[in-house]
Amino acid sequence: MKNVVIISIGDEILIGQTINTNASYIGEKLTSVGFVIKRIISIGDEKLEILSALKESEEISDLIFVTGGLGPTHDDVTRTCILDYFKTDLVFHEETFKRIKKLFERRNIPMPEINRQQAFVPRCAKVIPNDFGTAPGYDIQKNGKRFFFMPGVPHEMKAMMENVILPQLKEMARELKAFYHQKILYTTGIPESALFSKLGDVKNLFEDVKVAFLPSQFGVKIRLSMLSDNEPYNLRKIELVEKRIREKISEYIYSDEIQDLEFIIGKILQEKKLKIAVAESCTGGLIANRITNVPGSSEYFERGVVTYSNQSKIELLGVKPETIEKYGAVSEKTAIEMARGIRLNSHVDIGFSTTGIMGPTGATPDKPIGLVFIGYSDSNKEFARKFNFADNRIRNKERTAQAALDLLRRYLLGLEH
Amino acid sequence: MKNVVIISIGDEILIGQTINTNASYIGEKLTSVGFVIKRIISIGDEKLEILSALKESEEISDLIFVTGGLGPTHDDVTRTCILDYFKTDLVFHEETFKRIKKLFERRNIPMPEINRQQAFVPRCAKVIPNDFGTAPGYDIQKNGKRFFFMPGVPHEMKAMMENVILPQLKEMARELKAFYHQKILYTTGIPESALFSKLGDVKNLFEDVKVAFLPSQFGVKIRLSMLSDNEPYNLRKIELVEKRIREKISEYIYSDEIQDLEFIIGKILQEKKLKIAVAESCTGGLIANRITNVPGSSEYFERGVVTYSNQSKIELLGVKPETIEKYGAVSEKTAIEMARGIRLNSHVDIGFSTTGIMGPTGATPDKPIGLVFIGYSDSNKEFARKFNFADNRIRNKERTAQAALDLLRRYLLGLEH
Repeated sequence: MKNVVIISIGDEILIGQTINTNASYIGEKLTSVGFVIKRIISIGDEKLEILSALKESEEISDLIFVTGGLGPTHDDVTRTCILDYFKTDLVFHEETFKRIKKLFERRNIPMPEINRQQAFVPRCAKVIPNDFGTAPGYDIQKNGKRFFFMPGVPHEMKAMMENVILPQLKEMARELKAFYHQKILYTTGIPESALFSKLGDVKNLFEDVKVAFLPSQFGVKIRLSMLSDNEPYNLRKIELVEKRIREKISEYIYSDEIQDLEFIIGKILQEKKLKIAVAESCTGGLIANRITNVPGSSEYFERGVVTYSNQSKIELLGVKPETIEKYGAVSEKTAIEMARGIRLNSHVDIGFSTTGIMGPTGATPDKPIGLVFIGYSDSNKEFARKFNFADNRIRNKERTAQAALDLLRRYLLGLEH
Repeated sequence: MKNVVIISIGDEILIGQTINTNASYIGEKLTSVGFVIKRIISIGDEKLEILSALKESEEISDLIFVTGGLGPTHDDVTRTCILDYFKTDLVFHEETFKRIKKLFERRNIPMPEINRQQAFVPRCAKVIPNDFGTAPGYDIQKNGKRFFFMPGVPHEMKAMMENVILPQLKEMARELKAFYHQKILYTTGIPESALFSKLGDVKNLFEDVKVAFLPSQFGVKIRLSMLSDNEPYNLRKIELVEKRIREKISEYIYSDEIQDLEFIIGKILQEKKLKIAVAESCTGGLIANRITNVPGSSEYFERGVVTYSNQSKIELLGVKPETIEKYGAVSEKTAIEMARGIRLNSHVDIGFSTTGIMGPTGATPDKPIGLVFIGYSDSNKEFARKFNFADNRIRNKERTAQAALDLLRRYLLGLEH
């Protein structure tokens, strides 16, 4: 089992301007491969601080992951520290130069001199190419310890981890016989405490499998994990506990692989060769946005409308003015007419809709903030379901979108009739 | 000037299950009072780790803030570490006992023995009462250094900071004459390096103001900060440097207060009493979603459509089939017809649109992934602007949405004609 220290460089972390999500990401990934995170150190863009963090980390761990301070401007000092710490100098790296040049060519911008400088890399480093930005990463070995330096921009760092570093670490973990296995069961539509009650006597249920519940506005993730030198044992135990959990709460588990419900729905729609369209009021485009995050979603997503005004509900969806007048825009009837309207107008199999009061304003005596109707319409069935969420606008949008996608999933799978 | 180390205790932080927002909060608060955060250390619930982190922190700082590990269960070891580290023992603390007892009475639950144990506190500690939970905090002085121990539950920790600790620190900072000021300039539409080049000789430009560049896919934040014993000097210097920066790059700065462009645009639209509508193809609802994140956006946002299919572009926007056939759905002409269509159909002042190839599929020999057209239409002007982004689908959506909102901002402000 190898120990890891993660060093996050950047004043913005210390002063609380940036939350250190990079360290969480790296910690999660390395844990899942079978490494043990000993410590996370966040320091500013200060040479002495960086050098002393490197030294301390080398003393207490085998692998050191460093992010931040590799940008082209004056406040980025990590590369200079590398030269000092590893007693090396800079060499021109042709591939990196070409890569950076291409980045600017694609953007149709002349390449500034400070970016050209980024093609000079520490002699002792193996370069980790950056798919999304100019700064290369470095993989450096010293006295049996290994250092990975990556940019602090999250998606640049993540691409380096996924494409280059993690595959090597997985290989390393296999050789070390440190076997970590985990399985995540993604649930939605049920609170953590209700889930827990449904499971019953968890001590006997889980045995020696480590089980963690991770709630968020999208649902509760249940993580089962085992770390031992016995791979088959880990797998067998996790499988057993998963089976027991599924026996009790299977309908709430929408995936054991994919967190984002829109990907699950995309798969089902492609399998069933069905097309959908969505009419959003209170979610304001969030559902369409999530659906279109899936590559290839144009195959099954025909269109969406964000009918924020009453006029647009009438014009684009054929909602009857009387319905809005009599029951209000936030009502079961309006939700159903919206779902029907988008289905008929866009010639798809399923139309669905959202209408609600997201806050902070808009509440009336009988319609509080958080009141939401989700409408559904296919050629056999039409209905709307009522929800009562809380009073944070953004969170209400997120919860409504998640509930709407889960409702779609349940009907596509025949879980509800 | 006093230096601070923040120690965050908890396995959940190391394995990436919890993002360390406590440290960000403490860092932000202490910075704003005039203290300097030297380092944030995250460690697990391990006695040796905690003891060595305390020792290291005492060596490099004056104030040490520790959160986590004060709960009543077996995996909470911080109090035991305190006994070891400060060579002290536990004493019964009557007030804490009463406070915990009251908490359980209020919840109508008998008080478990493990919570009664929490009324025993380190003899050397001044107790910080917990308004929301059982675990008390501790304020401990040793050799001129000061240690604050707080629970890891965010709202319990925050209440201790706000009510007890920060008032004392503010007083301390006043006595020490340590004054910190900062200003953030939010820019978009220009890469970090180009921004830097436009600024020219930054050494002379910035003088002794600390300037940091923080890039993301939404733009580059420029943070100006000063820490000195002279409050008016700080303010004057920051103002001066801000003025110099604005002289060179003013059009790229969209705010010095608010990060999210949709809030800026909302303000302008309300001031100018203009209404907008958006026709999205490649952004798939992301723009409408961002616009409707703003409370009160229904005042100026009439509707949005997500015209993912060609058919929907024709039906909902009146895009001519010949235009799509001749130039393609991703073209200048289509973008303009989309913007015009949404403007006319929804009877608003400004219509705008996005169409592009987000990837990973959909590229053709002359239309690469990342090619985007943003269309604009008001009663005087119609045009589309071409962009070349990169090849990550989600990032392309985010960059396109940001560019579209910035284009809208620029035209609303008369920056472009």
